[in-house]
Amino acid sequence: MTVDDEFWNQYVERVRERMLEYQYEQLEDSGCLDNFRIAAGDADGDFEGFWFADTDAYKWIEAASYVLTTADDPALERRVDEVISLIEAAQTEDGYLNTWIAIEYPGKRWTNLSIGHELYCAGHLIEAAVAHHRATGEDSLLDVARAFADLIDEVFGPDGRQGVPGHEEIELALVRLYRVTGEDRYLDLASFFVEGRGETLEYEFEDTEDRAGDEEMWDAIRGALFDDDEYDGTYAQDHAPIREQETVEGHSVRAMYYFAAAADIVLETGDRELYDQLQALWRNMTERRTYVTGGIGSTHHGERFTDDYDLPNRTSYAETCAAVGSVFWNHRMFQLSGDVQYPELVERTLYNGFLAGLSLDATEFFYANPLEVGPDGHALADENPDRFSNQRQGWFDCACCPPNAARLIASLGRYIYARATDEPAVYVNQFVGSEAALTIDDTDVRLRQESALPWAGDVTLTVDPAEPTDFALRVRVPEWCSDVTATVAGESRSVEPDDGYIEVAREWEDGDELTVTFGMAPERLVAHPAVDATRGNVALRRGPIVYCLEGVDHDRPLAQYAVPADAAIEASHRSDLLDGVTILEGEARVPDRGEWSDALYRRAAETERLTASFTAIPYYAWANRDPGEMRVWLETE
Amino acid sequence: MTVDDEFWNQYVERVRERMLEYQYEQLEDSGCLDNFRIAAGDADGDFEGFWFADTDAYKWIEAASYVLTTADDPALERRVDEVISLIEAAQTEDGYLNTWIAIEYPGKRWTNLSIGHELYCAGHLIEAAVAHHRATGEDSLLDVARAFADLIDEVFGPDGRQGVPGHEEIELALVRLYRVTGEDRYLDLASFFVEGRGETLEYEFEDTEDRAGDEEMWDAIRGALFDDDEYDGTYAQDHAPIREQETVEGHSVRAMYYFAAAADIVLETGDRELYDQLQALWRNMTERRTYVTGGIGSTHHGERFTDDYDLPNRTSYAETCAAVGSVFWNHRMFQLSGDVQYPELVERTLYNGFLAGLSLDATEFFYANPLEVGPDGHALADENPDRFSNQRQGWFDCACCPPNAARLIASLGRYIYARATDEPAVYVNQFVGSEAALTIDDTDVRLRQESALPWAGDVTLTVDPAEPTDFALRVRVPEWCSDVTATVAGESRSVEPDDGYIEVAREWEDGDELTVTFGMAPERLVAHPAVDATRGNVALRRGPIVYCLEGVDHDRPLAQYAVPADAAIEASHRSDLLDGVTILEGEARVPDRGEWSDALYRRAAETERLTASFTAIPYYAWANRDPGEMRVWLETE
Repeated sequence: MTVDDEFWNQYVERVRERMLEYQYEQLEDSGCLDNFRIAAGDADGDFEGFWFADTDAYKWIEAASYVLTTADDPALERRVDEVISLIEAAQTEDGYLNTWIAIEYPGKRWTNLSIGHELYCAGHLIEAAVAHHRATGEDSLLDVARAFADLIDEVFGPDGRQGVPGHEEIELALVRLYRVTGEDRYLDLASFFVEGRGETLEYEFEDTEDRAGDEEMWDAIRGALFDDDEYDGTYAQDHAPIREQETVEGHSVRAMYYFAAAADIVLETGDRELYDQLQALWRNMTERRTYVTGGIGSTHHGERFTDDYDLPNRTSYAETCAAVGSVFWNHRMFQLSGDVQYPELVERTLYNGFLAGLSLDATEFFYANPLEVGPDGHALADENPDRFSNQRQGWFDCACCPPNAARLIASLGRYIYARATDEPAVYVNQFVGSEAALTIDDTDVRLRQESALPWAGDVTLTVDPAEPTDFALRVRVPEWCSDVTATVAGESRSVEPDDGYIEVAREWEDGDELTVTFGMAPERLVAHPAVDATRGNVALRRGPIVYCLEGVDHDRPLAQYAVPADAAIEASHRSDLLDGVTILEGEARVPDRGEWSDALYRRAAETERLTASFTAIPYYAWANRDPGEMRVWLETE
Repeated sequence: MTVDDEFWNQYVERVRERMLEYQYEQLEDSGCLDNFRIAAGDADGDFEGFWFADTDAYKWIEAASYVLTTADDPALERRVDEVISLIEAAQTEDGYLNTWIAIEYPGKRWTNLSIGHELYCAGHLIEAAVAHHRATGEDSLLDVARAFADLIDEVFGPDGRQGVPGHEEIELALVRLYRVTGEDRYLDLASFFVEGRGETLEYEFEDTEDRAGDEEMWDAIRGALFDDDEYDGTYAQDHAPIREQETVEGHSVRAMYYFAAAADIVLETGDRELYDQLQALWRNMTERRTYVTGGIGSTHHGERFTDDYDLPNRTSYAETCAAVGSVFWNHRMFQLSGDVQYPELVERTLYNGFLAGLSLDATEFFYANPLEVGPDGHALADENPDRFSNQRQGWFDCACCPPNAARLIASLGRYIYARATDEPAVYVNQFVGSEAALTIDDTDVRLRQESALPWAGDVTLTVDPAEPTDFALRVRVPEWCSDVTATVAGESRSVEPDDGYIEVAREWEDGDELTVTFGMAPERLVAHPAVDATRGNVALRRGPIVYCLEGVDHDRPLAQYAVPADAAIEASHRSDLLDGVTILEGEARVPDRGEWSDALYRRAAETERLTASFTAIPYYAWANRDPGEMRVWLETE
């Protein structure tokens, strides 16, 4: 599976060429690697960084492994091996591995599940190990991960400790470990953790002084998990067992990792009841609690989901990591169902809510992604200037987003195609130039995709079977598509999408081409009337790209631009702008400039309006020029 | 000066018949009067209520005195005298009077100016005393107030203590005392307090443990006056000397009382520099920080002004008392300038932002006045169900609003007319049925007004001079007026408003009538584009009345009603509804009901809309029927 796409290549390459290098430097500079050296007894010093800093190294290895899957890069491989050596050295005899506990709280293992993140770190270790093993065939890190997983399996479980991690992550990692090792106990342990939530962490708050972590840490997590003096647990999805949860709640990254893991369990167990539950949660999220960009988590208070239809624009949190987590979950939901709605959301999230988290050169990041920044900058800048800025930052204290972004981009290939499990059919879910090697009914099939997305809707799939083979290609028809045409082996083909897919079933011969063209017109989207923040507004979209206005292209406050319902909106490609983007232009109505100097209220009829041009750029590309205002949702008239 | 007005009579009478009685009962029930008894040594017990509970008694006396000015009510007079006796008894030998200090912190006078409210209470005592003296000619309470004012004058001043009150009120009261007594020292002391602000209260926070008030009280006021660890003072307008303040800041009631007092100083001293300063502050308030209802103070956090154009609807605080304070300040600004903008705002505030604070029967009150309540009730109900409700409450712990409302209604007459200071002219500023006795060039003139406001624009002024007399009537032409016609002594008269007034100057003879008719059409108002909360919305107004939609009249969520720009809006009077109101009706566009069951986003073009009738009622009359949604600002289409 190789990605080779005009749009995505730049990101894939930048992850390889710059981001991995840059993030590696951060591993050294932040003290993350030193923590391993100190824990191993090979260096002296204090623990540095956040208590879950180990995961920076693990996520870096995971992203690097995805790169190594398709690229021959001995220098990177060596560097990965060096980091693995540091990790190996820090592991104790019995398999335990966590530098924060080792350095700061030896003897206090597993005493702070609520926020100590030992299991969370273990999860990222396992994910890195599985990725490294799959990329290189080597067992070095996998052995480390298995030893730790075995220790965890000894400590936790139906007959052992009844704990769950305060931050989910190990659950989906354990399923991966199960898949690569075939050891049932890892799947059972994952299931134990998934099913074990429901006021499970409350007991830790009875004697926090005896537990790992200082008072400040405990106060913070108490504040998150308690509502007044009552244990509440929603922050960590610990308010109820998963089968009783009806709405997506709490810290959005935690929630995504959790539901992704639950979907993994269903994939292995076929538990329909759990799938139905996940589907209900997915509906709550997507029908009530998701930004038009695919971003989730409305508030920075606890990085949480809030209430139905509460989707403020200026204070939207929409954390980059939560977008990554949403892709993880949706990918698995598709695998469970074949439903088109999941890859739809993956596409929306990838091109918008996720990609906005990265600068064009993939070296600077947004932790939180507002949908609107006013003339005075980010509405929350006073609270945390780094996190709430109108400019991306090089790194964060809590550096979860950059490596998460790196591993998603490096693993982009896995979201493009899917094999149907029960019949000879291949789903084409994402339109990303790529080449895949498949085996269908024992025949090797190479499938090559060329895609003009996101700027044009032309997709060509070239099939190259070892011998002529019967199977179906199921090509997703995107929701943004205004019309679709297809030709198969040069012949035009009637297209009747069925459940969101065009199916072309035939005997494919060497070099057969399926060409699909999706109409791509500028569209105005509106939100449900219950969404206060967007009432009377429209968002512009063309193809999968959600647009925004940026201050640098306009000479008035953006709030003044009202897009009339009948305004023509023209798309044009600008290869010179923002590494090449298609922009949308049109005529907006703006208040007569002089008129509003003083009066706070006036008769509607007295408001004179002029016409002014607007230029919309892709939302993901904002904040790559002079900092200033930005708006996704625009007034209408 | 007698008010006799079809619209206002109900309120005036209810203040007299119910509100004063009701509030008197509260004085007993809440322990307010017992506090005086205990302080006097005539009863045992603990101090009850808020530490400034004394003002409830003072405000009640003030309101009662306004009633006694025009009504013969021996029972009320006796009751007032009884309360005055309690107050007299609680005053110490040296003039000091404050039951909270007397009972809880004897020996700690003036040690907590920041929030102890001794000077604030003294101010209300003085206002009550002046009102009582003017109403009855008696000196009983005036003597109490003077003795206390003299003590304060000994303690504070250029040669004494350099303190200022944390809550302004005494400043304007001292000017009143000066006017009734002619004693310059009261004016000087008022001026000392007005000019003395500017980080003046900071010193108290150095040793709060030695001062009156418990730790909780000090923590609260520290939280209000400090920004992080720095003294800030804006909460109490103590951030800078008044002549350096450029924006209206802090607790809105405090600000209004403060600026009203400063205007009083200018009235007595003619200090133009200070007037210019006040005018700049007034512009900041009215052009940036005032709701369309005249309400002020955007947030409940500190009951404060916030930033320019920050006027949220669901969380608007717009405290009833702040509306009262705004009327006080605007009244004085008019006296200083003769500018029409001030009585305009008085009218807007009286009929909307103020009156909404009272139930129709004047026995229940809103402390805070939201401009929008959603389907789930008041947005802040979780924080304080009493204060943030969609139903008015009988009384509040902090019972400042009801007596403040009572004294404003009882003194309504003072806002109707004004004498020009330098020429024989009478301003008619408010259109409230009334009869005034004036003296113009030594001639007694009776002026009678009949007014159909707020439901129709017909106003008749009948002049009844003791002998024919030359003078001008200057009748304000309201901003809401679409056209105006006038007849004088039966003859139609051309009307050319000059600076917002029609002037009719002539020799008036007995029974001469000036009839003015103001056109009153339903209007749509829009707010400055910088106001986020109302962007793309309209407010409906007819005459001085701002309208709202209430849930009880509609079968859909109010957010769904979009009023097209060209929709006809019909006014009709409904004498059966809400004690008689003129309603506005029209056809709104609403989304097709079934369509929005699931999707969170959709193409704008796909939104089908239906037509649905809407009924708007006066904003002041909301929440007098079944509780539910309410909206002032409506979507447009």
